[in-house]
Amino acid sequence: MSIRDLARHLDISIGTVSRALNGKADVNAETRERVLEAAKRLGYVPNQSGRSLRQGTTNTIGFMIESTIETVDGGGSFFMPVFEGVQSVFRRHHLDLVALLCGTDEDPASYLNRVVARRFVDGLIISATARNDPRIDFLLERNIPFVALGRSATKGDYPWIDLDFEGVAATAVERLVGFGHRRIAIGTPASDLNLGYLFLDGYKRALAASGIDFDPGLVLPANGHEEGGYQVASALLAQKPMPTAIILVNENMAIGLYRRLYEAGIHPGRDIAVIGFRESTQSRFLSPTLTCFRISLRDLGIKLAEALLSTLPAFAGQYPPERVALIWPMELVPGESDRTVPGAGTAHASTSIPGS
Amino acid sequence: MSIRDLARHLDISIGTVSRALNGKADVNAETRERVLEAAKRLGYVPNQSGRSLRQGTTNTIGFMIESTIETVDGGGSFFMPVFEGVQSVFRRHHLDLVALLCGTDEDPASYLNRVVARRFVDGLIISATARNDPRIDFLLERNIPFVALGRSATKGDYPWIDLDFEGVAATAVERLVGFGHRRIAIGTPASDLNLGYLFLDGYKRALAASGIDFDPGLVLPANGHEEGGYQVASALLAQKPMPTAIILVNENMAIGLYRRLYEAGIHPGRDIAVIGFRESTQSRFLSPTLTCFRISLRDLGIKLAEALLSTLPAFAGQYPPERVALIWPMELVPGESDRTVPGAGTAHASTSIPGS
Repeated sequence: MSIRDLARHLDISIGTVSRALNGKADVNAETRERVLEAAKRLGYVPNQSGRSLRQGTTNTIGFMIESTIETVDGGGSFFMPVFEGVQSVFRRHHLDLVALLCGTDEDPASYLNRVVARRFVDGLIISATARNDPRIDFLLERNIPFVALGRSATKGDYPWIDLDFEGVAATAVERLVGFGHRRIAIGTPASDLNLGYLFLDGYKRALAASGIDFDPGLVLPANGHEEGGYQVASALLAQKPMPTAIILVNENMAIGLYRRLYEAGIHPGRDIAVIGFRESTQSRFLSPTLTCFRISLRDLGIKLAEALLSTLPAFAGQYPPERVALIWPMELVPGESDRTVPGAGTAHASTSIPGS
Repeated sequence: MSIRDLARHLDISIGTVSRALNGKADVNAETRERVLEAAKRLGYVPNQSGRSLRQGTTNTIGFMIESTIETVDGGGSFFMPVFEGVQSVFRRHHLDLVALLCGTDEDPASYLNRVVARRFVDGLIISATARNDPRIDFLLERNIPFVALGRSATKGDYPWIDLDFEGVAATAVERLVGFGHRRIAIGTPASDLNLGYLFLDGYKRALAASGIDFDPGLVLPANGHEEGGYQVASALLAQKPMPTAIILVNENMAIGLYRRLYEAGIHPGRDIAVIGFRESTQSRFLSPTLTCFRISLRDLGIKLAEALLSTLPAFAGQYPPERVALIWPMELVPGESDRTVPGAGTAHASTSIPGS
């Protein structure tokens, strides 16, 4: 099936078919729909050779993720459902999604530079935004369509969607303060990820609102995987007195944290209150189940895809141009891991607290 | 930095530089090395426009994974370290890796067809091979370089690497029989994945070698994620008498299996022996720790990359042409989950068995 066959089938000129496929503005919406529908039905696939990103016609969108240690250990379970959501939108428009894998020992900005030079993507979704992220400047300068999964201190007019890290931290603190806790620790990323700054902000503001002084010694940096959680638990155990509660920025940490606490004879949900981050299959199967926050990663993927399409001129008819700037809310899912009252006896704490 | 600049810098003709970059046979090895080294040092990135897969010069390799439910829930933690290993080889040769994400509701063969038509990859690594896999026929017909992660009943002369599913099943059966077990169940994939057939084969052969009759009722199909493990445990609990041991084809299943067993008051490692599949961070943090099998996923990725490069003419000098056909061994990692003797009292079983 060539573009010539497609034109003959539709009885439209090759030029019109080409302009319709390439999303040019001088083709009316009805004709474009007919052409796209026939292209899909007849299995027409454009040959990418000779096309470039600037023309916006590779029909491929890149989703850049960093295969850092954090991603290697835990990131897959986050990104796969997001990809699913992105694909569910892209498929309707004959766009394919590829994951661009930036190696552990590679500079993300250089990697992106190279990918862009290779010109096989029409647009990009970037993730793991740093506090200051040179990728954003680079993409803005070159006028390349993109959306950021994650905020950044880097300024500019670009679309982004981010999880509500401040909100999660604040809700967790308020909940724990409500149970009587005052010494509440947090496990935060040991890196320059912007989300760490947001999480800390939310934590500090909620403490202040409850009249609790901020204690830098209760901020425990670690990587966002099981091993990091194990280290956070060790840091907790080393403190005298031990904090009565801990809030984690990453759900993978909870597994290692539980393990280390159990080794020390400390039971999460009985001797210390634990609030994790994102609800996952793992969090539901932990014993005790983890109090955490729910998000539909598939819906997040859908919104990311729509935010990107609304920046592409070829889709202006279907996705009105807008600059998405969206903090994605997360819903508390009470588990068994934070049903503890500081200072209460063990038996008392595990039996008399009704939970929520 | 254009190819012209590169040629001028090296004082070699543009044609020779181009042929060296494209791996043509009529450039001597020393010149090719000089060109590649300079291209790397000076940051030359070829423009992909107008190039095609047949010419082998997009410098991009695709790794096709299926974002099925299994992959969405658990696959990320498997593939990310494999990608890391692949990248560590490709980086030396200025090749980039992209993950080609085939959607849940999409036919893998059609997806691959489209990706190939788009011509932005020089070669492919395919995974999740089915018992009969039309992708293999398609790639062989079109003479497209690829390597399969996974065997298949589909015939042909192509390189593949696969985990030792038969060996894992056989070793697990032998170990459990050695502990005195006779009623040993297995959790296998509820799909047409080729690995399920291999796992079942190894199980049957090891039972036969121990003089134990094969009982089809002990083969419990489920998906390779936590929820699947929960279902396997429910199926176990429904049997009278309950099997005394279970071998899982997927490590993610163990989390759900533990949960369901605990709910029923059955303790893994005390009341039933459990052997999981792959050692992972999760398996180490489970209580009791899971007896499973070790594999370096990064090394697997390295070997996959080398197997692919040995099929690409451009790399014939560095990777002598060979057809890799490799069953990757996995090493038993004894945990606490299978230290149980069938028929022994609970206290006895949990204290007097030294383990291994």
